[in-house]
Amino acid sequence: MEKTAYTLIANIGQVKKNSLCKSPMNGDPMFDQAINKFMNEAITLSEKNLEMMHGGPFGAVVVKDGRIIGRGYNRVILTNDPTAHAEIIAIRDACNNLKSFLLEGCDIYSSCEPCPMCLGAIYWSRPRKLFYGATRHDAELIGFDDYFFYQEMEKSEERRVIKTVRIMRDEALKVFQEWEKIPWKPVY
Amino acid sequence: MEKTAYTLIANIGQVKKNSLCKSPMNGDPMFDQAINKFMNEAITLSEKNLEMMHGGPFGAVVVKDGRIIGRGYNRVILTNDPTAHAEIIAIRDACNNLKSFLLEGCDIYSSCEPCPMCLGAIYWSRPRKLFYGATRHDAELIGFDDYFFYQEMEKSEERRVIKTVRIMRDEALKVFQEWEKIPWKPVY
Repeated sequence: MEKTAYTLIANIGQVKKNSLCKSPMNGDPMFDQAINKFMNEAITLSEKNLEMMHGGPFGAVVVKDGRIIGRGYNRVILTNDPTAHAEIIAIRDACNNLKSFLLEGCDIYSSCEPCPMCLGAIYWSRPRKLFYGATRHDAELIGFDDYFFYQEMEKSEERRVIKTVRIMRDEALKVFQEWEKIPWKPVY
Repeated sequence: MEKTAYTLIANIGQVKKNSLCKSPMNGDPMFDQAINKFMNEAITLSEKNLEMMHGGPFGAVVVKDGRIIGRGYNRVILTNDPTAHAEIIAIRDACNNLKSFLLEGCDIYSSCEPCPMCLGAIYWSRPRKLFYGATRHDAELIGFDDYFFYQEMEKSEERRVIKTVRIMRDEALKVFQEWEKIPWKPVY
């Protein structure tokens, strides 16, 4: 049990370190062709909702070792789930296939620049690279609030549209202090 | 079909408008007591992982009309899902119960300040208020990257640790243009 937890923590440390290495774009025509193929698949997924109407026109794939290991298109409307964005679904699909919550050595392709929620999810999953097509401003032009939410997140809490209040910090911190005492706790 | 879509769009418009109204804190002792009760429940959920180790020590609840309608605690490790944060799980739970992807008139209580992913999810679900206990800096002190991710999101893409590249924007925009032609499309 201790060894497993230790191995887990060691592996996460390795992925964190790798994520910090900026690997240059290859420039190789075969490499570029592969990139376009994967983005094309993300865009094809985004087209699904022109007919399905399960959500907005957004698609995403996760790629590892030249193979798609996760796919997603927006299903917010169908599933009544505000978190069912293309990237979130693709990340969950890939993680389920890898049996890992880390997308080590993976690249994410999204038909549109990820919203703050999806960019946050991408950071937590720690992939190698992110490719996207349309921008947050393009999404705004067709009625989505991605750009607005980015602006909100940069504001101090007092200036945000969702009223935000900090309470009972001391009580919450007691749990953090107990957590700190656990010798082989997972970190991610 | 058209009427359903229209009603949906009208309802969302109403929620968007309501979200923009900053409602003041009540100040009423009974009101404060209720708030503390709900935050206490979020903190109790955060304690689960001191034993369960399903993920980090974080809990959240969603409240509507004085009743908890969604609960979550972090399950990233157990489910191999990097998006399985307390707030995301609580929001999905509440939305499933309400059969809506909008948390109209709801308040969210989280034992810790939401990370960028969770704050993004909160914005998409459009609740009335957010209450939290510990801060992003408190989370950093016990080894979590919330604060680092907030810093990353404010940077230009070129300066982020995850290499980010925009490709095939024109192809992605073609789908947006087709989307724009749909008369009764959902917006959220």
